[in-house]
Amino acid sequence: VILVDGAERAVISALDRGLAYGDGVFRTLAIREGAPRQWRRQYAKLAADCEAIGITPPAELLLRGEVRQIAQAEQRCALKIIVTRGPSERGYRYDTKTPAVRIVLSSPYPQYPPSYYDCGVRVRRCRVRLAGQPALAGIKHLNRLENVLARAEWTDSDIAEGLLLDNGDCVIGGTMSNLFLGRSGTLVTPDLDRCGVAGVTRDRVIHAATARGIAITIGNIGWRDVLSADEAFLVNSLAGVWPICELEGTKLSTGPLVRSVQCWLDQDDDADLA
Amino acid sequence: VILVDGAERAVISALDRGLAYGDGVFRTLAIREGAPRQWRRQYAKLAADCEAIGITPPAELLLRGEVRQIAQAEQRCALKIIVTRGPSERGYRYDTKTPAVRIVLSSPYPQYPPSYYDCGVRVRRCRVRLAGQPALAGIKHLNRLENVLARAEWTDSDIAEGLLLDNGDCVIGGTMSNLFLGRSGTLVTPDLDRCGVAGVTRDRVIHAATARGIAITIGNIGWRDVLSADEAFLVNSLAGVWPICELEGTKLSTGPLVRSVQCWLDQDDDADLA
Repeated sequence: VILVDGAERAVISALDRGLAYGDGVFRTLAIREGAPRQWRRQYAKLAADCEAIGITPPAELLLRGEVRQIAQAEQRCALKIIVTRGPSERGYRYDTKTPAVRIVLSSPYPQYPPSYYDCGVRVRRCRVRLAGQPALAGIKHLNRLENVLARAEWTDSDIAEGLLLDNGDCVIGGTMSNLFLGRSGTLVTPDLDRCGVAGVTRDRVIHAATARGIAITIGNIGWRDVLSADEAFLVNSLAGVWPICELEGTKLSTGPLVRSVQCWLDQDDDADLA
Repeated sequence: VILVDGAERAVISALDRGLAYGDGVFRTLAIREGAPRQWRRQYAKLAADCEAIGITPPAELLLRGEVRQIAQAEQRCALKIIVTRGPSERGYRYDTKTPAVRIVLSSPYPQYPPSYYDCGVRVRRCRVRLAGQPALAGIKHLNRLENVLARAEWTDSDIAEGLLLDNGDCVIGGTMSNLFLGRSGTLVTPDLDRCGVAGVTRDRVIHAATARGIAITIGNIGWRDVLSADEAFLVNSLAGVWPICELEGTKLSTGPLVRSVQCWLDQDDDADLA
């Protein structure tokens, strides 16, 4: 199903700035048992990302209705919401009066091997570096060529994800996931002030850890920090939590923290649309 | 007129990766007197940019036919060519077998005041910095949020362009133009190995200067270098050559080099489609 501004159609204007300049934002969320997961957090992020680049976000009620329509029809799927600045004349300048265009579309829920969740995933180190751009850091915008290039670096289907560093040698996260390390019973996750995407599941982990009195540090992480961590794991809205069991050929152990995090997120699997 | 894969239609698939990730490239060229200008250079750049990000470029003959069709119908317009990696399933990974999608569309030729060409333009310094990304530098790809943010910094219609610096304090160019300085009878233009877009008109200036024995340096340019230059000018395919007469309130003089460059480009206004 594809809804463009609420209507069932599979196309957008060739003049849309989302196409011309990647001028927009998106989110990917899980629909399970006919309900979108973490709707409030997802909408809040989408709206904040829109505002960060000067797009007036679509009303929550409007978008929620479209998400519910697809959720009820599909029951279980990956839902993607794209919001663009809409069509415009040629040129980078935009008219603030043009309403945003919203695209809501469903894809089959990805069928990851259960071992990814249980035993962990093999991960590589990507060659492409993320560029530091504080004006866009953390935002899930449509300028994602770095992720496309990174994902094109490997075809081995045994490698589930690639880790990306910035040009200051800090590890920022996976091509489609956020990274956490367990270190002496505390959690560490990369600072996303210069690049990277701040996902909803990352927020949930930070929130859940804090609520349970587990210390969490947001800071710079080097490659050796990942290799020497007690445990390392990746999170996103569709996959949940994947322990990293092998990183560029080095075995990592799966410890108690990642199991706790998996458990916390299961307990907080918010399906409330309101 | 909008041609999508050769057919007259105004829409593209909502699943196109150009929309999802800015996964594609574009060019803007001038159509005057029914003929596209600098077609060979434009096509060569488009094809090289496609290949740089792993897209098989559309055949020259195919694209040339579409460009000619619009050129003959419109006589004078701005022509934009977008090539995307085409539609795909959700996810950054792409299928190398999917053919690229090509979009050829015309806009009214921009009506710049003749004084821009004759007397020069007022230019500002943008606050947003260009991020250094060697893997994408020089390529006219569809990830242009930095340009969008930069252009949104001013609404004063007396300011024709804004100059962008990278995060190493090097001046890279305008939001929609390349920069040249005249210094002691030689030309200087920014190195675009870390960021920026290498335009066709920039290449033409470099080529024309070299052919005429004028020394040209491609290197790092600081803000003070621009202010202290004998002359400074901006180039792109639609505007041609604009002297900078005022930069952030400082008057710059318009010297003999910029007039020569205007003249060289007039002499080399290639209209050959073959």
